[in-house]
Amino acid sequence: VCDVRRDAEWVRERFGAARIARMATMADGRPRLVPVVYALVGATIYTAVDGKPKRTTELARLDDIAADPSVCLLVDAYDEDWTQLWWARADATARIAVESAEGVAALRNRYPQYASVALPGPVIVAEVTRWSGWSAQ
Amino acid sequence: VCDVRRDAEWVRERFGAARIARMATMADGRPRLVPVVYALVGATIYTAVDGKPKRTTELARLDDIAADPSVCLLVDAYDEDWTQLWWARADATARIAVESAEGVAALRNRYPQYASVALPGPVIVAEVTRWSGWSAQ
Repeated sequence: VCDVRRDAEWVRERFGAARIARMATMADGRPRLVPVVYALVGATIYTAVDGKPKRTTELARLDDIAADPSVCLLVDAYDEDWTQLWWARADATARIAVESAEGVAALRNRYPQYASVALPGPVIVAEVTRWSGWSAQ
Repeated sequence: VCDVRRDAEWVRERFGAARIARMATMADGRPRLVPVVYALVGATIYTAVDGKPKRTTELARLDDIAADPSVCLLVDAYDEDWTQLWWARADATARIAVESAEGVAALRNRYPQYASVALPGPVIVAEVTRWSGWSAQ
């Protein structure tokens, strides 16, 4: 098994194709992790507070970003054949947008599920400052 | 869609069954994310520096933990049917063990892949301080 660090283009492509990412926020000086659905537009990752997750959890995430904008997002694939493993990571600076027409449109376009899931809440707008990635081969 | 916060027993069960987790460490005051294979023994999560990932990445992870022991681990499942979504999270305090017979044995027992992948490096020993989880139903 060899392994390869990947360039930004490869990482962006993986973020464009994956369906779920995990986002780490800063929670009072320690990391907090949640999975997120998201949309990538240029160097911006949008994720929304929708009708799906529990409200208190969402609020914690928003509080985290309001206090510290540093976030990290990861997409990956697991396979029992470890030569197939890869991951792609975005370090980003996030803000809370009360409304984001572009973000909501991108999310609705990407996930048909949003046809029946409300998007009442604010949108997290994460500007990517660094792409990094790895694959086993 | 309703949603449910899950208790520690449910969360531990999910951690016992999943094959991959994502671990967030603290990297100079901001979060860093990587996927990890792991083994759960009691309230301890073991993950190793094995022959699989790129060495520089592993070292970054170890440096992070040496400087700040706060970590967060997440397992989840994505499904296009959003009523099937769930996640399970462990907040933990990690240390680097130069050797951990228990950790290595648990990892080898859990992943047959380790029969052909070396485990030359230290083991990250993460003591879980809080379990939390959520499912869509």
